Amino acid sequence: MVVVLRRDATPEQLEAVVDRLHRLGFAVHVSRGTERTIVGAIGDRRPEHIPQLEAMPGVERVVPILRPFKLASREFRPEPSLVEVGGDGVPPVVVGGSRVVVVAGPCAVESERQIDEVARAVKESGASILRAGAYKPRTSPYSFQGLEREGLELLAEVRRRVQIPVVTEVLNPRDVEVVAEHADMLQIGARNMQNFALLREVGRSDRPVLLKRGMAATVEEWLMAAEYVLSAGNSRVVLCERGIRTFETATRNTLDLSAVAVVHELSHLPVLVDPSHGTGRAAYVAPMARAAVAAGADGIMVEVHPSPDEALSDGPQQLTPEAFAQMVESLRPIAAALGRFV
Amino acid sequence: MVVVLRRDATPEQLEAVVDRLHRLGFAVHVSRGTERTIVGAIGDRRPEHIPQLEAMPGVERVVPILRPFKLASREFRPEPSLVEVGGDGVPPVVVGGSRVVVVAGPCAVESERQIDEVARAVKESGASILRAGAYKPRTSPYSFQGLEREGLELLAEVRRRVQIPVVTEVLNPRDVEVVAEHADMLQIGARNMQNFALLREVGRSDRPVLLKRGMAATVEEWLMAAEYVLSAGNSRVVLCERGIRTFETATRNTLDLSAVAVVHELSHLPVLVDPSHGTGRAAYVAPMARAAVAAGADGIMVEVHPSPDEALSDGPQQLTPEAFAQMVESLRPIAAALGRFV
Amino acid sequence: MVVVLRRDATPEQLEAVVDRLHRLGFAVHVSRGTERTIVGAIGDRRPEHIPQLEAMPGVERVVPILRPFKLASREFRPEPSLVEVGGDGVPPVVVGGSRVVVVAGPCAVESERQIDEVARAVKESGASILRAGAYKPRTSPYSFQGLEREGLELLAEVRRRVQIPVVTEVLNPRDVEVVAEHADMLQIGARNMQNFALLREVGRSDRPVLLKRGMAATVEEWLMAAEYVLSAGNSRVVLCERGIRTFETATRNTLDLSAVAVVHELSHLPVLVDPSHGTGRAAYVAPMARAAVAAGADGIMVEVHPSPDEALSDGPQQLTPEAFAQMVESLRPIAAALGRFV
Amino acid sequence: MVVVLRRDATPEQLEAVVDRLHRLGFAVHVSRGTERTIVGAIGDRRPEHIPQLEAMPGVERVVPILRPFKLASREFRPEPSLVEVGGDGVPPVVVGGSRVVVVAGPCAVESERQIDEVARAVKESGASILRAGAYKPRTSPYSFQGLEREGLELLAEVRRRVQIPVVTEVLNPRDVEVVAEHADMLQIGARNMQNFALLREVGRSDRPVLLKRGMAATVEEWLMAAEYVLSAGNSRVVLCERGIRTFETATRNTLDLSAVAVVHELSHLPVLVDPSHGTGRAAYVAPMARAAVAAGADGIMVEVHPSPDEALSDGPQQLTPEAFAQMVESLRPIAAALGRFV
Repeated sequence: MVVVLRRDATPEQLEAVVDRLHRLGFAVHVSRGTERTIVGAIGDRRPEHIPQLEAMPGVERVVPILRPFKLASREFRPEPSLVEVGGDGVPPVVVGGSRVVVVAGPCAVESERQIDEVARAVKESGASILRAGAYKPRTSPYSFQGLEREGLELLAEVRRRVQIPVVTEVLNPRDVEVVAEHADMLQIGARNMQNFALLREVGRSDRPVLLKRGMAATVEEWLMAAEYVLSAGNSRVVLCERGIRTFETATRNTLDLSAVAVVHELSHLPVLVDPSHGTGRAAYVAPMARAAVAAGADGIMVEVHPSPDEALSDGPQQLTPEAFAQMVESLRPIAAALGRFV
Repeated sequence: MVVVLRRDATPEQLEAVVDRLHRLGFAVHVSRGTERTIVGAIGDRRPEHIPQLEAMPGVERVVPILRPFKLASREFRPEPSLVEVGGDGVPPVVVGGSRVVVVAGPCAVESERQIDEVARAVKESGASILRAGAYKPRTSPYSFQGLEREGLELLAEVRRRVQIPVVTEVLNPRDVEVVAEHADMLQIGARNMQNFALLREVGRSDRPVLLKRGMAATVEEWLMAAEYVLSAGNSRVVLCERGIRTFETATRNTLDLSAVAVVHELSHLPVLVDPSHGTGRAAYVAPMARAAVAAGADGIMVEVHPSPDEALSDGPQQLTPEAFAQMVESLRPIAAALGRFV
Repeated sequence: MVVVLRRDATPEQLEAVVDRLHRLGFAVHVSRGTERTIVGAIGDRRPEHIPQLEAMPGVERVVPILRPFKLASREFRPEPSLVEVGGDGVPPVVVGGSRVVVVAGPCAVESERQIDEVARAVKESGASILRAGAYKPRTSPYSFQGLEREGLELLAEVRRRVQIPVVTEVLNPRDVEVVAEHADMLQIGARNMQNFALLREVGRSDRPVLLKRGMAATVEEWLMAAEYVLSAGNSRVVLCERGIRTFETATRNTLDLSAVAVVHELSHLPVLVDPSHGTGRAAYVAPMARAAVAAGADGIMVEVHPSPDEALSDGPQQLTPEAFAQMVESLRPIAAALGRFV
Repeated sequence: MVVVLRRDATPEQLEAVVDRLHRLGFAVHVSRGTERTIVGAIGDRRPEHIPQLEAMPGVERVVPILRPFKLASREFRPEPSLVEVGGDGVPPVVVGGSRVVVVAGPCAVESERQIDEVARAVKESGASILRAGAYKPRTSPYSFQGLEREGLELLAEVRRRVQIPVVTEVLNPRDVEVVAEHADMLQIGARNMQNFALLREVGRSDRPVLLKRGMAATVEEWLMAAEYVLSAGNSRVVLCERGIRTFETATRNTLDLSAVAVVHELSHLPVLVDPSHGTGRAAYVAPMARAAVAAGADGIMVEVHPSPDEALSDGPQQLTPEAFAQMVESLRPIAAALGRFV
């Protein structure tokens, strides 16, 4: 790292910084410019070093040189990670390879009939993973909160019957075990991206994890959240961009597709894109799904409901099964243009 | 609510909307303008109605008229809520009255000596609640995560010894009970503002709750998070503005002091301001603490550490006990100007 | 529009609102709910009506029903606008039709040799409009500000010699005439999107206008800026999304590709995407250009420089001519998948 | 500056970077860590150096050490600047000293009677500068655009008659001269903060300049905009914070009061705060004006209108003269607490 001193830093303050760095085990090089003195420090940085040094008298700021994530970085693992989802009685699917994976299903499990109908429809149209919420994080305590345990059981049944792996969200560290028993993949929602108790718990699970980006999270913070899961021993993490919060109100969130390119540069982890939450409007889902595939996403995650205007949540952004089927068809030539397939 | 139809909506689509509203029990009034038809609906709206109606063919958007929070609203309770913290062996303090409450302490409990020294110093300078983290939410899994259970015990001891109530953060629903046994007030951190499992759990506790605003949360979403706690049965909620995430990089966050005025208009709940996290720089803490008091905040929450450059977290934003004492003095005439006292 | 009264509004305040609306010529309908009274007003709204009504005692807020733009709206003109650029001695190109238009060139005109080399290269690779700045808006007064008049002349020469239409930015209302004499299309940069003096001046020109989105502009404000140009008499406006400002720092801006779908829904104007400014990194330009085409953009605008590391501005985001040629090839199958061509 | 190489940078790429730095006249120091090589460069950096170096093969990023502004910096001028406004037939007022300056007046000049009434009222209540727009930047071309030339004349008359200096906005470089003839201070509005043609023009004027912060401008960019004016020869610049654009919708903008502390640390220029535009709601203006004074602002700028519900612009955020008078009174003890006066 590089410690930049204030212009008015005294020689004693410089000496104190150099001493501290030596005691912490860094090799130190001091460069004196006409306006600022900077101190380069080479060695093994711990996270607390930067704030401690910044709190020293005479220090203006500390510039880290290395990224803070390790296991999630391309440098740790130069080739892309392949994450297998499913198996164990249902057909497995690999995320991160040449297949552009389609994850689809309703916002929430509402009934046996609803989830069965959607599961069959999306599988037939090309989806290889079923999504649906049993535990729903809702802004209002008065909104439908999901069928919870019953929803998990409905998911497990439709999984076997329709033969499709299932991803569903877990909200509470206490529920990780039961969700892992019923589903193939554990979803961490955007609101819980920095719920570190939950990240550590899914890090101890043997299920792959779908980690959505927080609404106000930088890509670096997102990869640090992945680092929590990876460092707890679970190497099967798939990221999912779902829109960030900006001043724009025409869309529910602003889908940051450049995050796909940034993640692929910095990390070996696969990354999906969710245009349903990213835009919040059914009419924008298909063009943004196409854009996501063209941007290099390893898959998309889309909400599908047989009757969006009767959905218990997120109606305006859910596609009908027919619209979904058309959208999937439109992705195929784009994937082909990139040497991939849907 | 008001349902705005698309310009090209058909008479059948209008009829379907009116039918649906009637079936949901609303009184309906249709207004036909030259460019748009709008449908006013008077009655008891449930949260799912808006997305369902927006998903209907021919509907452009639905405009809610009433705010979604109830128990947190000024309309539910016109006079300000007073929340008592402490008692039970330590001096109680009331938040929300004419006293501007000062909450202070280190970012994290690090040792018996450190917490004892800070507790005595801040109490002597005018703080009436001690803050310190035993469980720390950290962006990196490699950062100091707090002394956890041991930290809680150190807090409980210093609480009795120094005779000051304690607020500390809880991260995991499983820990709510043990934290409530050791501390007077449960803090929900910014990253967990929409951790609904945790909100419900503290809603079942008998301890007052300090609810920090999420980094990307609107005031309305923040009040909805309070509504989770209130609707679970715990009426003692104190809000805390701690900065929101914007494009500005000169400060760690952007402290939104206008949120104090907005909260006071919409809600009866008291609101504190945390200029330490809000700015991230010790040099900015005192001016922003003064501004918070002038804006009408019911208190401030400030980080104090005996040696900020040795702190295991958040060094650059922690004040020394001396700087803290000076800052508190500077708040007194400002509080007096508003008819309050520190 | 709909006027929502405060819960505590008095009958006199309601009457005053109704009177005012009648005097302004609106048909009025009052709906009394249990918690709020709302007043629907049908008629011809002028922009000042909303703030005036919101300033009346007893009024909580006013909800506009219609969008504020007219000439830019799909309702004014349901079919997409085609904007011709060029002619007048160079081959014309139509923006907004089935061709996905490629606009390319260096950030700034630096020398005759540089602009000639780039113009020939990008034309050969498939660009049909040359971009290059003669007047450069720079954050620092000490940065290269463009060759100004000399740059315009170099552009006019290369335009004729290489036979390619030219777009270049105009910063000052005083320069609109001279820029219009030398170039085929006038660019309004992001920083000037709400420079209304400049918008009105280009609205009086007979050249087509390329209107970039402001860094903090909503799509609605962007279309209102277009409305300035259209209402001044110039109907040839092409929009260009170039990234908005968010908290993310991994990219220079956040490219908002969903804006393409939003613009196409609300307006008849064509919309380009600039992934060079949108990302700020050459490595991200090609994937985001592909994503833009897949999202339905009517064209892309890309920076190309023979030696990016010697460029006088914006080096890190400029492509070499070779990288540009490869990128254009990669766009062709994606455009074809959407029934268009590059 | 510090050049950080990519982990996979070759020895030849390092050599090329070192060579380039030597040719540019920098003293160079290479530090080889286990994971990254960094190159420190000491010397006189020009703005184009950073992007050029970042565009070189093998370079990951370039970290500037010095701030880009000079004349606006505290290092250039350690003591605060005092800017005199007025004189020349009206009482002068000094901005930046111990007086907290109050600037007040209507959003726009609407009529002789209106501006006369407001000018007398605000002067009597303690304002020492009158604000009012003759040229109005409006989002919609159909909104009232100001009385323009006639408005300037009304301002010049009321200035003499009421004996109060006047600040008014200039939108077009062509109008700088005429505005300077009629007013004491030239305002650059938020939308024009990076209108560099206009900044240069007011930099050549002999009138002091009030430079509002752009809605999406960092403090650093704002100071760079000031640098344009200063480097053109006009040293009398006063900054004005007026709210930045964020995701929050409860207020029109988010007033960033920490910017006052940041500006005072980095620059010698005085800084005012505009709580009217900053919040957009009359009810929030007084608390935020108090907060601004407590945060150390050198003054406030507030909109006042005799009948806000008849104002031709910005009604909901304008105070009545009575509310204004009360607000000014409430500022006095707060200013006194900081050793200043209103």
